[in-house]
Amino acid sequence: MRLRNKPWAVKLVGEHPESVLDRPDPASKIDWSKRFTDISRPLEIEVGSGKGRFITTLAEQHPEKNFVAVELQITAAGIILRTKLEKKLDNLQILCADAANLDSFFSPHSAETIYLNFSDPWPKSRHEKRRLTYKTFLAKYQAILAPHGHLEFKTDNAGLYAYSVLSMNNFGMHFDFVSVDLHHENDEIVTRNIETEYEHKFAAKGNPIYALHADFGVK
Amino acid sequence: MRLRNKPWAVKLVGEHPESVLDRPDPASKIDWSKRFTDISRPLEIEVGSGKGRFITTLAEQHPEKNFVAVELQITAAGIILRTKLEKKLDNLQILCADAANLDSFFSPHSAETIYLNFSDPWPKSRHEKRRLTYKTFLAKYQAILAPHGHLEFKTDNAGLYAYSVLSMNNFGMHFDFVSVDLHHENDEIVTRNIETEYEHKFAAKGNPIYALHADFGVK
Repeated sequence: MRLRNKPWAVKLVGEHPESVLDRPDPASKIDWSKRFTDISRPLEIEVGSGKGRFITTLAEQHPEKNFVAVELQITAAGIILRTKLEKKLDNLQILCADAANLDSFFSPHSAETIYLNFSDPWPKSRHEKRRLTYKTFLAKYQAILAPHGHLEFKTDNAGLYAYSVLSMNNFGMHFDFVSVDLHHENDEIVTRNIETEYEHKFAAKGNPIYALHADFGVK
Repeated sequence: MRLRNKPWAVKLVGEHPESVLDRPDPASKIDWSKRFTDISRPLEIEVGSGKGRFITTLAEQHPEKNFVAVELQITAAGIILRTKLEKKLDNLQILCADAANLDSFFSPHSAETIYLNFSDPWPKSRHEKRRLTYKTFLAKYQAILAPHGHLEFKTDNAGLYAYSVLSMNNFGMHFDFVSVDLHHENDEIVTRNIETEYEHKFAAKGNPIYALHADFGVK
């Protein structure tokens, strides 16, 4: 998803350094304890939040947890920020940064869950390394996640899904949940599912949504 | 798939004990060297062959390999046998038997490939143990397959596919190939694919075909 640059979003981000970390230097550690009310709460991270419907809904539903939305585009970060301010989500921080530096922004084994929702499929073979389920990214998630933390991935892209199943299996990850038609699973799973903006559109067209939840635990 | 019992099929099977092993005693070993011209050829097994379009096409394409079609229904076995006789497929044997006894019919590590095509999905949880990708079946395939032998699975059933991906991953299997839309993969994969009777019908309706190839090799 590429968004047109919106001046109001850039301005809003500039006015809220307490809520948005705007392209921080990967060399300097982020002190999350100064950014969250209670650092002892479980931490969940979404990588590539887009306009943020998923992560803001989740943050609203779970005041007992801390959330970080990682999103490279400043306009998207501004849109997430606007929702955060409207809904007074003190448990949500926005990190406007490249996911390639993820392991420098978080302490080892500090997160409970990492979400990848409708990530860019990068369909060409020569762009394989940019896919968020490429092995170098998986290694970063492993470094950040608690030993029994989870990676939760969903997409509507058949190619990215197949690639990700293969990549995560070959990395030695243990699968907890697999679906090739998430919106037609049993009621409990469908009810619990939080739709992203994209997902809502795609599913409305009748396209299947694919999901995979996995961990790095010893099998 | 349930076939109506056809007397001609039962009769034909009875006339060809050299081609069909009709419900052999699981306690007595099968001497495959007496049933194939050249036992040194690679062995490939299809579990649940139905009317046999897949395995007879494969046997025709690969005279340098030996094939066994495992099929419990005698009528289906008769249909496979008819094709075998018509096409003079000396490299194809038919085993009319329950897959639950598979490990008693084949020597350890004697097969190169096991195929599972459009297996019965057994959708109810209480029937999980009957699914051909349940862990007890996977253990049998592991026992029969050569150390770097492959299991090749395809289905049109979303529930069975998701279950099988999870089950094979949790069993520690290593994935080689994953597709959630086999008929729309690149040309080389589509061209190489041999359709079963079912697959032909389902794909014609525009339904996706799911595939997974995996091995038991150390990761």
